[in-house]
Amino acid sequence: MTHTIGIGVIGMGWMGMVHSRAYRQVADRFADSGIRPRLVICADDVPARVQHAQAALGFSEATTDWHAVLAHPDVEVVNIATPNYLHLEMVRAAAAAGKHIFCEKPVGRSPQETAEIERLARQAGVISFVGFNYRWAPMVQYARQLIDEGRLGKLTHYRGRFFAMYGSNPLGMLTWRYQTEYAGMGVLGDIMSHVIDMAHMLAGPIARVAGHRHTFIRQRPLPILGQGTHFSLGHPDDPTGPVTNEDYASALVQFENGVQGTFESCRAIFGPKCEMSFEVNGTEGALRWNFERMNELELYLPDGTPARDGYTRLLAGPAYGLHGRFIPGDGIGIGYEDLKAIEAYQFLQSIVDGQQAAPSFADALALANVQQAIVRSWESNTWEPVISLRREV
Amino acid sequence: MTHTIGIGVIGMGWMGMVHSRAYRQVADRFADSGIRPRLVICADDVPARVQHAQAALGFSEATTDWHAVLAHPDVEVVNIATPNYLHLEMVRAAAAAGKHIFCEKPVGRSPQETAEIERLARQAGVISFVGFNYRWAPMVQYARQLIDEGRLGKLTHYRGRFFAMYGSNPLGMLTWRYQTEYAGMGVLGDIMSHVIDMAHMLAGPIARVAGHRHTFIRQRPLPILGQGTHFSLGHPDDPTGPVTNEDYASALVQFENGVQGTFESCRAIFGPKCEMSFEVNGTEGALRWNFERMNELELYLPDGTPARDGYTRLLAGPAYGLHGRFIPGDGIGIGYEDLKAIEAYQFLQSIVDGQQAAPSFADALALANVQQAIVRSWESNTWEPVISLRREV
Amino acid sequence: MTHTIGIGVIGMGWMGMVHSRAYRQVADRFADSGIRPRLVICADDVPARVQHAQAALGFSEATTDWHAVLAHPDVEVVNIATPNYLHLEMVRAAAAAGKHIFCEKPVGRSPQETAEIERLARQAGVISFVGFNYRWAPMVQYARQLIDEGRLGKLTHYRGRFFAMYGSNPLGMLTWRYQTEYAGMGVLGDIMSHVIDMAHMLAGPIARVAGHRHTFIRQRPLPILGQGTHFSLGHPDDPTGPVTNEDYASALVQFENGVQGTFESCRAIFGPKCEMSFEVNGTEGALRWNFERMNELELYLPDGTPARDGYTRLLAGPAYGLHGRFIPGDGIGIGYEDLKAIEAYQFLQSIVDGQQAAPSFADALALANVQQAIVRSWESNTWEPVISLRREV
Amino acid sequence: MTHTIGIGVIGMGWMGMVHSRAYRQVADRFADSGIRPRLVICADDVPARVQHAQAALGFSEATTDWHAVLAHPDVEVVNIATPNYLHLEMVRAAAAAGKHIFCEKPVGRSPQETAEIERLARQAGVISFVGFNYRWAPMVQYARQLIDEGRLGKLTHYRGRFFAMYGSNPLGMLTWRYQTEYAGMGVLGDIMSHVIDMAHMLAGPIARVAGHRHTFIRQRPLPILGQGTHFSLGHPDDPTGPVTNEDYASALVQFENGVQGTFESCRAIFGPKCEMSFEVNGTEGALRWNFERMNELELYLPDGTPARDGYTRLLAGPAYGLHGRFIPGDGIGIGYEDLKAIEAYQFLQSIVDGQQAAPSFADALALANVQQAIVRSWESNTWEPVISLRREV
Repeated sequence: MTHTIGIGVIGMGWMGMVHSRAYRQVADRFADSGIRPRLVICADDVPARVQHAQAALGFSEATTDWHAVLAHPDVEVVNIATPNYLHLEMVRAAAAAGKHIFCEKPVGRSPQETAEIERLARQAGVISFVGFNYRWAPMVQYARQLIDEGRLGKLTHYRGRFFAMYGSNPLGMLTWRYQTEYAGMGVLGDIMSHVIDMAHMLAGPIARVAGHRHTFIRQRPLPILGQGTHFSLGHPDDPTGPVTNEDYASALVQFENGVQGTFESCRAIFGPKCEMSFEVNGTEGALRWNFERMNELELYLPDGTPARDGYTRLLAGPAYGLHGRFIPGDGIGIGYEDLKAIEAYQFLQSIVDGQQAAPSFADALALANVQQAIVRSWESNTWEPVISLRREV
Repeated sequence: MTHTIGIGVIGMGWMGMVHSRAYRQVADRFADSGIRPRLVICADDVPARVQHAQAALGFSEATTDWHAVLAHPDVEVVNIATPNYLHLEMVRAAAAAGKHIFCEKPVGRSPQETAEIERLARQAGVISFVGFNYRWAPMVQYARQLIDEGRLGKLTHYRGRFFAMYGSNPLGMLTWRYQTEYAGMGVLGDIMSHVIDMAHMLAGPIARVAGHRHTFIRQRPLPILGQGTHFSLGHPDDPTGPVTNEDYASALVQFENGVQGTFESCRAIFGPKCEMSFEVNGTEGALRWNFERMNELELYLPDGTPARDGYTRLLAGPAYGLHGRFIPGDGIGIGYEDLKAIEAYQFLQSIVDGQQAAPSFADALALANVQQAIVRSWESNTWEPVISLRREV
Repeated sequence: MTHTIGIGVIGMGWMGMVHSRAYRQVADRFADSGIRPRLVICADDVPARVQHAQAALGFSEATTDWHAVLAHPDVEVVNIATPNYLHLEMVRAAAAAGKHIFCEKPVGRSPQETAEIERLARQAGVISFVGFNYRWAPMVQYARQLIDEGRLGKLTHYRGRFFAMYGSNPLGMLTWRYQTEYAGMGVLGDIMSHVIDMAHMLAGPIARVAGHRHTFIRQRPLPILGQGTHFSLGHPDDPTGPVTNEDYASALVQFENGVQGTFESCRAIFGPKCEMSFEVNGTEGALRWNFERMNELELYLPDGTPARDGYTRLLAGPAYGLHGRFIPGDGIGIGYEDLKAIEAYQFLQSIVDGQQAAPSFADALALANVQQAIVRSWESNTWEPVISLRREV
Repeated sequence: MTHTIGIGVIGMGWMGMVHSRAYRQVADRFADSGIRPRLVICADDVPARVQHAQAALGFSEATTDWHAVLAHPDVEVVNIATPNYLHLEMVRAAAAAGKHIFCEKPVGRSPQETAEIERLARQAGVISFVGFNYRWAPMVQYARQLIDEGRLGKLTHYRGRFFAMYGSNPLGMLTWRYQTEYAGMGVLGDIMSHVIDMAHMLAGPIARVAGHRHTFIRQRPLPILGQGTHFSLGHPDDPTGPVTNEDYASALVQFENGVQGTFESCRAIFGPKCEMSFEVNGTEGALRWNFERMNELELYLPDGTPARDGYTRLLAGPAYGLHGRFIPGDGIGIGYEDLKAIEAYQFLQSIVDGQQAAPSFADALALANVQQAIVRSWESNTWEPVISLRREV
């Protein structure tokens, strides 16, 4: 049975292009699902972007007015890949139009905004999905399976980190990401959201946290026109403006099930390129994964003999998660965008099934609750419990 | 300027699908080239395959008669992804039809056949290209650049290997790959062709070789119907037939420029999953690469100080080769099929330029000359010079 | 000029033997220093131990009464390698006898006890030294040199950990290490002391901490006779007693110079064998080291070109620290006990120079001040400043 | 029961010192064996060397006349650590004196010389031993155990290499190692002897070989006085002399049991520091080891499930070989000289038992037979069988 699903994408920067390619891959990689996404319309303020997206990916229509996406009768799914400060307004409109919604992380600029977004989608009865793409690496899925099967025994430790260099250069321009007004939280909202989401998936809910933050680079060159881009550099004598959110966040973490852990993220660190990694220890085994080698998983599953008493380096292959949808042979890696294709498939399958799958806005809210506890901890200088912000109708 | 190029693909197994996706990526990843491949028609004996290919990838037409591809007026490029024993016939027909030709490796079953194929394309004046996809890994391209710039000094050593497990199970069925009649050479023709091509690209022409071969598994279960697939297993009590080509090949290698080296390949080894790797040493530096970690390159470029006196692990990123066409940030990996997209782009750009680029059938012939010397060495038990088989008109 | 120094060792368990061998190596490895340690006398409660030590290592005398070591006129240095609860009494006696003192870490069971021990040695005017042996790995010394030379720029991040499995088995017996009365702190005093000392050496003084602890295994089998050993296992139906100190400790850490960091240690974790590691990031470089590969250092020192933009794996060799005292060639590793030989040399050289070197009891006290702040943080649930406990006369 | 064994060491360069320390460690590390080596006398042409050896290690006597070692009534074992060209003469004298003999590799300058040396010791009825120290790494011993137990199934592949940089600098002086007259073979005799010995131990006897050699650096600066040292550099305008043996050797190798393999060694390669490594594949498992990480073993022992389908990195610990004699805990490495202590113990235990253990001069001869076949292959340019040179009385 074939399920044609009309897709509208808002925001045709890098991430919007990535999402669009991901939808296009679904019919091919998951042909047996019967899901046939149709790229109906793409929107962006910048005309050149929508023209390129249309030409390169085959959208039927393109617009510079994002409202046109919501109004389009063939659009069943709205995909939001815009800066954070636009998410609430767009979700509100999409929910009102009864569209299913994919929103890039972080969903809201603040936990309160995420709670509002979650409420809007819930009340509208639409399916939601969030771009926590690291979940979908086949080796991560396999890690999750091992944990769920109890292969690691009772979990004891979880360590998650995400270190990136995108803000390491002091000449990196003062884009929206560095400003509370547009981005909300800094690294806690941006890349640490992946850390928390992954921890939720693998180790379960978090009971309490003690957090810390720091801003290493407090002034950055002002972009000349509008927002500049993620990778643009200013000049040493450019006028500067203040960075108003944090470069660095760390936390001590206690999970509800007794697991002890730490989280740490920085966007202004020098050394790691894209070190989104985790380590999990249990009473019978352990594992660790690093996105910089996403096609590997290191697994410790001793059996009491010397021959098994070390970490085994597993190479991605058809035996692990959905890897086989991309490559039939062993030891051949997939790429970052393939995670996005799996993500798109999981979302569309959730729509076909009429069953909300994870990660939904509810999962984003669970994550926001943890962020909120960390933010409170910054003020109180003490441990803070994770409290649900869910807004009931 | 836009260049629309009509593509016909013959053979819609895994590799044919991979090639088709690769063409589809070109308009997107290399949008500024103006190249716009159009998937005109796909062909395969198996109707289900062409139906799937058409549905999943959007070919305008599909056929079970490969001659229809050659006859199609919109087809400018013929892409051959069929078993080896069909290559010659198909190339002959494609050349006669004046189509540009992409052929998967190994081009011919024997060096003589490759020489014939090279002659046909040359005389027809069409552009040819061969699927030596490991060339296109951005970190390999960067390795080549460093060598070409002389950063490693004068090269002294080259070690290339390709170990895979696809034939390690004695119950793996007697498909065409194991039979001289259909495949020609065994591992020498199959995966060792990648080793030799890579060595040619990085270290230059080979002067002489001393080779060795072995067949570890001499009987395999007969497939019930036709050819079976690469990964099918028989049962221990199935009737068996003889493996008539080699599982293992090794060689001592002297390059024309004085580089000393070794090649080694096996399809029936236990341990390595897809270890296509090389190590190059020169008088001022060294590097090594392994496809199992294709997004990395280990580079030794000492400067006489202790801080630089080791191998540096470089992670793929926009600074290396064409990686930035896929991912704008550092430390984020691409996948195997992205190499095929680069390959497709290089081929199509060669057509647009009207300039034969590498690797062409001439490069396949250069490789075949080395294979031929290795084969002679199997018989003579001594060193054999590499001699050109090129057939002049 | 030759300096013969008489050595008395108290406590001939594994660590006492290690220390004794270390002294014996000094005359050989550091022959040009003129230092000639003489193994005068060894002491232990267990007669078999001292007999073995004497036979194997050549002590002139052996005793089961440790006071005899202090009373011996040829003993210039007293080396204490006994359980923690005996340190204070022995240091008091050694200081009163005017002997130079080497004490294994952790010096005191509590920060207060360490402060008392530091005061005793200081007032007696003797040279002290502490067994923070990881300092002495040549690749760690080289890391320190790079930091001191400013090669990493201004430091920004420090992450230290020590994970070991010695307490991971719930049947591991309730030895003195698990009891506050005998050991004082648990993992914070034991292996985390190495983490803090290393951080002090590499990144400087710590301003404040927020700590956490956990005890995963709360009951352990009682040893039948006395204390059992570090690696003895009980039976599931043995009578048990309570573990009264922590298995796990973690902390968020702010250094006085603005470096942000984390510490984490566990003795009851499953997976890491002896993962004493650190990572340091600065504004111009980064490095990381792991004792499990103590003969390596990973160093990131980019120069703005793609060829240098990754971590370089340096292999130990004569160019790094004092490695050349053990091995003249590159890429050949030294062992754990060689670190102890370097430590013994540094201590004895300090005596010969009449200049207190590091790590002294004052360094142990600086570390104890951090531990004290972590302990206070356990109670207050908030950040605690590091306050000096130094006891003035 | 105690076995005191008098030791005389000839040649007090680096290796002679290493051997002497190794004997000294035996009483301590292998106390339960009852073996108590006594350092009786050391000899070297250079007076400063024997003085240092005596002072640092405690030899009872020292001499510049090596014949005094053989004449000493307390000497039961003669340890030869001199340049290759002196081995034959010294072994002849030691055998005539009825002493047990340890000789550093390569035993003879040529296979013929090794055969002569083997004959002399055999006819004298003394125990012999050779310094193939890589055999004794605990992780190598464990590898051997796994192979002997059949855990890898039937062996199929063996790859051995030893790459070092000691001759990579063209200004490295023309010491005895580079001259046929003094050293005999070049890299084939020097470091490739380790490769062949290891292969013999792990994979058994070799049936035939096809070899190759090359000399990259054909002229080197003449040392001013005598022979210079291993690591001395000349100046670009120094007078030079010819290198008369090979820098590089490679071989295709067939073992008697059907294993297929390659050997490769170079002393003038740029990159590897001390890469003495091997890889072994069988029909049920595989393993690989590299001396640069001698405290690790990578082991592939799949069981058909995805969780075991990769190489496991084992860290040295008491569970492996004799590692526990040095370190009681897991994950703590030993050093290069500890291998020499194990070697010394194995040799002395062989003497105590009155049973010739391996590696003896007979094993050195087996290795020389392989070298001889490789040398013949250099001349014949074809495969050469391994033929025994053993000289019967």
